[in-house]
Amino acid sequence: MPKKLVLHADRLFPADPAVRAIARRLYGAVQDLPIISPHGHTDPAWFADNEPFGNAAELLLAPDHYLYRMLYSQGIALASLGVPSRKGSSEANPREAWRVLARNFHLFRGTPSALWLSHVFSVVFGLDVVLEEKTADHYFDVIGAALRTEAFRPRALFERFNIEVLATTESPLDPLLQHRKIRESGWRGRVVTTYRPDVVIDPEHEQFRGALAQFGELTGQDVHSWGGYLNAHRLRRAEFARAGATATDHGHPTARTADLGQAECERLFARVLSGRFTPDEAELFRAQMLLEMARMSLDDGLVMQIHPGAFRNHNLWLSEQYGRDKGADVPMPTEYVNALKPLLDRFGNDARLSIILFTLDETTYSRELAPLAGHYPVLKLGPAWWFHDSPEGMLRFREQTTETAGFYNTVGFNDDTRAFLSIPARHDVARRVDCSFLARLVAEHRLDEDDAALVAEDLAYRLPKAAYRL
Amino acid sequence: MPKKLVLHADRLFPADPAVRAIARRLYGAVQDLPIISPHGHTDPAWFADNEPFGNAAELLLAPDHYLYRMLYSQGIALASLGVPSRKGSSEANPREAWRVLARNFHLFRGTPSALWLSHVFSVVFGLDVVLEEKTADHYFDVIGAALRTEAFRPRALFERFNIEVLATTESPLDPLLQHRKIRESGWRGRVVTTYRPDVVIDPEHEQFRGALAQFGELTGQDVHSWGGYLNAHRLRRAEFARAGATATDHGHPTARTADLGQAECERLFARVLSGRFTPDEAELFRAQMLLEMARMSLDDGLVMQIHPGAFRNHNLWLSEQYGRDKGADVPMPTEYVNALKPLLDRFGNDARLSIILFTLDETTYSRELAPLAGHYPVLKLGPAWWFHDSPEGMLRFREQTTETAGFYNTVGFNDDTRAFLSIPARHDVARRVDCSFLARLVAEHRLDEDDAALVAEDLAYRLPKAAYRL
Amino acid sequence: MPKKLVLHADRLFPADPAVRAIARRLYGAVQDLPIISPHGHTDPAWFADNEPFGNAAELLLAPDHYLYRMLYSQGIALASLGVPSRKGSSEANPREAWRVLARNFHLFRGTPSALWLSHVFSVVFGLDVVLEEKTADHYFDVIGAALRTEAFRPRALFERFNIEVLATTESPLDPLLQHRKIRESGWRGRVVTTYRPDVVIDPEHEQFRGALAQFGELTGQDVHSWGGYLNAHRLRRAEFARAGATATDHGHPTARTADLGQAECERLFARVLSGRFTPDEAELFRAQMLLEMARMSLDDGLVMQIHPGAFRNHNLWLSEQYGRDKGADVPMPTEYVNALKPLLDRFGNDARLSIILFTLDETTYSRELAPLAGHYPVLKLGPAWWFHDSPEGMLRFREQTTETAGFYNTVGFNDDTRAFLSIPARHDVARRVDCSFLARLVAEHRLDEDDAALVAEDLAYRLPKAAYRL
Repeated sequence: MPKKLVLHADRLFPADPAVRAIARRLYGAVQDLPIISPHGHTDPAWFADNEPFGNAAELLLAPDHYLYRMLYSQGIALASLGVPSRKGSSEANPREAWRVLARNFHLFRGTPSALWLSHVFSVVFGLDVVLEEKTADHYFDVIGAALRTEAFRPRALFERFNIEVLATTESPLDPLLQHRKIRESGWRGRVVTTYRPDVVIDPEHEQFRGALAQFGELTGQDVHSWGGYLNAHRLRRAEFARAGATATDHGHPTARTADLGQAECERLFARVLSGRFTPDEAELFRAQMLLEMARMSLDDGLVMQIHPGAFRNHNLWLSEQYGRDKGADVPMPTEYVNALKPLLDRFGNDARLSIILFTLDETTYSRELAPLAGHYPVLKLGPAWWFHDSPEGMLRFREQTTETAGFYNTVGFNDDTRAFLSIPARHDVARRVDCSFLARLVAEHRLDEDDAALVAEDLAYRLPKAAYRL
Repeated sequence: MPKKLVLHADRLFPADPAVRAIARRLYGAVQDLPIISPHGHTDPAWFADNEPFGNAAELLLAPDHYLYRMLYSQGIALASLGVPSRKGSSEANPREAWRVLARNFHLFRGTPSALWLSHVFSVVFGLDVVLEEKTADHYFDVIGAALRTEAFRPRALFERFNIEVLATTESPLDPLLQHRKIRESGWRGRVVTTYRPDVVIDPEHEQFRGALAQFGELTGQDVHSWGGYLNAHRLRRAEFARAGATATDHGHPTARTADLGQAECERLFARVLSGRFTPDEAELFRAQMLLEMARMSLDDGLVMQIHPGAFRNHNLWLSEQYGRDKGADVPMPTEYVNALKPLLDRFGNDARLSIILFTLDETTYSRELAPLAGHYPVLKLGPAWWFHDSPEGMLRFREQTTETAGFYNTVGFNDDTRAFLSIPARHDVARRVDCSFLARLVAEHRLDEDDAALVAEDLAYRLPKAAYRL
Repeated sequence: MPKKLVLHADRLFPADPAVRAIARRLYGAVQDLPIISPHGHTDPAWFADNEPFGNAAELLLAPDHYLYRMLYSQGIALASLGVPSRKGSSEANPREAWRVLARNFHLFRGTPSALWLSHVFSVVFGLDVVLEEKTADHYFDVIGAALRTEAFRPRALFERFNIEVLATTESPLDPLLQHRKIRESGWRGRVVTTYRPDVVIDPEHEQFRGALAQFGELTGQDVHSWGGYLNAHRLRRAEFARAGATATDHGHPTARTADLGQAECERLFARVLSGRFTPDEAELFRAQMLLEMARMSLDDGLVMQIHPGAFRNHNLWLSEQYGRDKGADVPMPTEYVNALKPLLDRFGNDARLSIILFTLDETTYSRELAPLAGHYPVLKLGPAWWFHDSPEGMLRFREQTTETAGFYNTVGFNDDTRAFLSIPARHDVARRVDCSFLARLVAEHRLDEDDAALVAEDLAYRLPKAAYRL
């Protein structure tokens, strides 16, 4: 007999009965609030076309770098998991790939992936036995059958998940046709885009030169002049705003900003265009562009997100064989206090601007980020991110930021995911962890329970909506 | 009906009933011990003149950068809070300023400011409803009325607070008249000073050159010669010691120390005096001066405190409009192992010297500070400081230092505050958190309860008294 | 009446009754598993010669730098504790030295040393009163009497401790005679060696030049040519493998690796041999040698351990008077992501290689080490090390690595000790802490109890055995 899959109603709540009772009450009042998903990486084509998803492996395994990086770390070849390489899509049989995951599912004990997947299996698909070698085929069949039904089409799931608004993330080169198609379809789901211009801002991006050329064509601007280049950004930002965007996003190696004079900017831009720039010049250019983006945000009202600190594509061989974004990004120490100073010197006190900071370096929570966000009107703290978007990680975030920045300089939860089916699971984990943290404050008489209830609602719903101007 | 303000007797204790019971017993034995406040920033004039304090806003809001930095971070103008600017005192109506705080008091949910203020409101002023918009005037009136009574004059509060000794902090240029007045008044309260020479040690301090000139006049030394300059320090230190000082304090950007030869010192000092020094030379001069201060401590017995790691006055605009120390200081990564080596190479094994280290970079607790203090006879660890002087911060301090440095290389609590009325609240929080930490060790059978009781008393009373030679 | 010494059956388990009950069950199933000790510093001569140990001070105090560093930090002279200096063995009377420890045993409240020693006193020696001034002589006498019995000879203790395999650590210059003697003795205890070549790899080691000469003699290689030098390593590694070694160990100041061409290696090696090298060149040489060691591991199958990040012998005076390794090592910030890249670029995807990473910088757990080990097939994480090998430290390790790297990229426990009698105590602490962490996951419904039971067994027994190829 396979083991039963049970999602315990009290999962993630503290064990102490008194604290748990408080957590349960706080969570009870927020568990069914609509989902605000202001930062994520789902594919807008899903909602534009509303085609059925494929099969368990293709939907749940091959695109989820949390899953295949863990399997890879134990010597399992990506090819066997259906992960496409530079040579094209994988030849792995999806059912076989799924069996590999099932056979190795013990590797995920204690990880958020196990929590998220259990939620997807149980709540979304109604499965009632655990995933293991002997239930692999059962899973594959049940999931496959469900995906062929109307109820599992993207729009139906979106509605079933009670998503009030979902932001996707697009390149400035994206013509945003999917978003237009969604809008024009008459479907009532709200899917907005986000302006993510890294590919035309980072001179070290492998596609930079080609992307820049396209950027010029798309906007009709002379993107080889500094003024034309900035103008092209302005035009695309306006186009994104028309497609519902309320935010931009910037994934730089560091948080460095700069505030150069006009002539210096032009000289630097010329160097960047020449292709003969040093790493320092590339860094300085990205730094200056954060300031330019902030300046444009003051004009067009887009909220600015800064996601620094990842060493992208760290694994040389994997990058050569499989390309970018294959679970081989690694966090680096990240500095904010000096890095952000030029930007803050220029705009830090202008409350019309809103900048949401993220980090992969948890040491900055109490040392730099909470003190900065607890002082500057323009700064807010994004939630625990990526490797730290996990029960322990989210708890550390609250424990290390609340006392200096409070709850109201934070912005609620981001799921930041391309795993569409896990969105309810992720928001549920975040709500449970926040309620657990609040319950401890209540139990220790550091906060009244009715105040805690207000905070729980703010974190689950009101703050993300307000912070992202949704 | 406004909500009741209740300070729960078990606040800050762990929720588990068994652990809470132990914490309660441990705390019960230390809660009424006299307060030793060996490091703080109250104004000695309060105790010299014993004049009544003004009103709620002037006493509790305008001088408390924990409060107005949080309000400012949410876009509230400092001018509306009664914070004086470079142009002079604020024109804000104190009652209106207080209403702004009341209206926004939810911002402090989960912060130590809320804990401290609730204690002040409830215990010091006997208020029994929570602070919110509709109770703002009630608060303002009750507090104002109390402050006009004899029982709320500074000396009466000092006695009511059961303060055994209170250290203030003065510039070397301070003539210490207030301390003399206190001593000569016949009042039995013990208020001592602390030698804080940053303004004549930091060549980058905006007042350095003027301060140096005054330093020469005050001491009759040629402070433009290296020997005379050092002598001026010796004379002022002796004067401070006569005014009760048992300690010096040094607030440098880093913990760097240096041990240069005589000729090098003279050359470096000449550069500093010339005003044409590099940032590195300024840093080296501060580094050398930490060594000189240690050398003098060996002679005069003053305990040395090092408080490194703040980026002071980070907000350019605010600094221009409002001046220094307006809640815009931000911690930076801080390194100790290499930084302190020159000083430790010279004096690290001389048990007559005592150096108390602080940090704003919690990553150094387990990595650098506990290993250093757990080995060098001259080093002790100051308590969790500033942004980390909070329940979670104090708990992290104990969790991350005790196993390597023990309890006996730490020095009890510092309130480090200019908010005089919050002193009992702050010591109470520290005693509760230490007892909570100890209670967990007892409950987990890592420490006997009678040993824990001894440690609790040591932390609350004996260690600060001994460490500061009071 | 002296206070009773009681080892509580539930020590180190969480206080909450439900969590504690789970922890107790998990621990119950692993508490008696054989000890796998794959990394330590006991003296193989003990097992080769099987001579009785001396007395309490000589066995338990003088060699234990955890103990005498704490005593030294409070101004107690090492000479009084029986710690040998450069001038030779201490003249301290062992009984007097033991009394100093007893009188100051309160300094260890809340430290792992207190836990370990209590276990040794109670379980190994059957003592039933606590160590304090008035029981010092009783302790000294009881321990001394026990050590003169057969049951306390090294081999008898090894068997009583249920050690399945114990790894020692030797210099490449060690002729491994003790290990041969053990093997040839017919005794069934398994004691293996570990190849620790720092002394012939670190050009800054004070014994480097002499060691290199010996290295050449011992191997018959021309160790002044790059090829001969590498060959000497190959020969010694093979000899170590024949003496049971399954691993190498590398204690470098940083984790830096390099992948230079043949000609560059030869040039660098020539600089190193010349003695006229810069600190950078020394660092680069160590970096290159990590790559060479990895390459050799691919050939001979030895598992590679990297232990970076200690500032060795930080106390100048102590080092001059007492020599190396006298409790004056201090952790430094340590970087892995860039440091390991050359090695990982070369061998990171080759699953035949196994590299176990350690750190003294806990900030790297969630930021660098878990993400690296959770991706690269060659990497695993060693347990919480040295200053962090303590209940709080081990808990932080699990809390900060599990969610990204899982349990199965970790390798169980290392005792890393020369304090032979404390080995069961240390493994017991590790098993209790791991079971406590797992119990919390179970109580919070993040892991089934039967899965947790499997993980507990894996961590206690199966993972170290597999990871070290024992």
